[in-house]
Amino acid sequence: MAKLVVRSFTMSLDGFTSAPNQSLESPFGEGGLAIMDWALATRTFKKMFGKEGGTTGIDDTFAAKADEGVGATIMGRNMFGPIRGPWLNEDWKGWWGANPPYHHPVFVLSKYPRQSIPMQGGTTFHFVTEGIEVALEKAYDSAKGKDVRIGGGATVVRQYLRAGLIDELHLVITPKLLGSGERLFDGTDKVVKRYEYTEFIASEAAAHVRLVKRK
Amino acid sequence: MAKLVVRSFTMSLDGFTSAPNQSLESPFGEGGLAIMDWALATRTFKKMFGKEGGTTGIDDTFAAKADEGVGATIMGRNMFGPIRGPWLNEDWKGWWGANPPYHHPVFVLSKYPRQSIPMQGGTTFHFVTEGIEVALEKAYDSAKGKDVRIGGGATVVRQYLRAGLIDELHLVITPKLLGSGERLFDGTDKVVKRYEYTEFIASEAAAHVRLVKRK
Repeated sequence: MAKLVVRSFTMSLDGFTSAPNQSLESPFGEGGLAIMDWALATRTFKKMFGKEGGTTGIDDTFAAKADEGVGATIMGRNMFGPIRGPWLNEDWKGWWGANPPYHHPVFVLSKYPRQSIPMQGGTTFHFVTEGIEVALEKAYDSAKGKDVRIGGGATVVRQYLRAGLIDELHLVITPKLLGSGERLFDGTDKVVKRYEYTEFIASEAAAHVRLVKRK
Repeated sequence: MAKLVVRSFTMSLDGFTSAPNQSLESPFGEGGLAIMDWALATRTFKKMFGKEGGTTGIDDTFAAKADEGVGATIMGRNMFGPIRGPWLNEDWKGWWGANPPYHHPVFVLSKYPRQSIPMQGGTTFHFVTEGIEVALEKAYDSAKGKDVRIGGGATVVRQYLRAGLIDELHLVITPKLLGSGERLFDGTDKVVKRYEYTEFIASEAAAHVRLVKRK
């Protein structure tokens, strides 16, 4: 049965998944990209950006599995881009260039409607204005039996977490400190006790935890 | 030169160092003791409680080093006991029985004065009403050149952290979820960037991070 999953979602030691002041230059906010060092060093990520080399240990194993069995992705508008408010034109097509690393339908939560954007390599960005449950329904439909992944950011993962809709989370904790930003675990006290960890393993750069919702 | 250190200070995956509703039966709050499983399983802790056996890997190495070079401990009143408000009598002498595992002077921050309590094995509890800086001064004096450790809880560690007084923190992250409680990293955004991690290593039960204040 298809699941709603979160993969390789990374937190700083002080609990933040991005830093304040996101911009075109800083998708993770000012200084926030540091928490992704563990991933950017892997062979999987290097390859994604057309580079050679990279680490091949625990971190790479998780990075490589992030897409496994995933047929659709849901993301928040801020993960799609730095633009706020209504779409002024159709120019912005995500951070990822002409061939985004999704290769399946991506549902972007937004208050503002916009035409779907077909990209190279199988990715199509769809914009959903009717909220998280409609987005999930559409994503499950288009995933055709495969899992649906929530890409981020923290606000979106948190909304699905609070609603009790997430079946499995792979979280990554890095020893970096951000100081401020978005916290995944804010106002999640009612729901987190329904999850238990089934895997815990660390590289020299990050600790990986798999949380699964109890039946 | 003597340092102010924090050792084996443990956080849940969602960032809490204790759960709500501390009581005589639950020094870490309701369900909060679960985050200390990594420590309670070690040979060092078993021995402390007069038991045989226990783990001897990474976790035990850190547990054993928690006292190393420490000549005095500072703790908050809630770490000393579950009583709130003025001391009604002299009965409560800490959670740890007649021979507490400190074996050096312990300075308890409290708004309410109380006579010092000499215990077996070298531990004396002193009560400091003049705030964190006076407590630190007294602790350094009595440590005679050794380091001073902040025992906890989160409120006290956070106060010293915010004041920029901590030289080194050994934090432990467990994959357990508490849902709510005290957060070490609340309102510490101005100061955490002065720290960098110098060690990161994990067992099957917990990840250990050493943070050191930049010179």
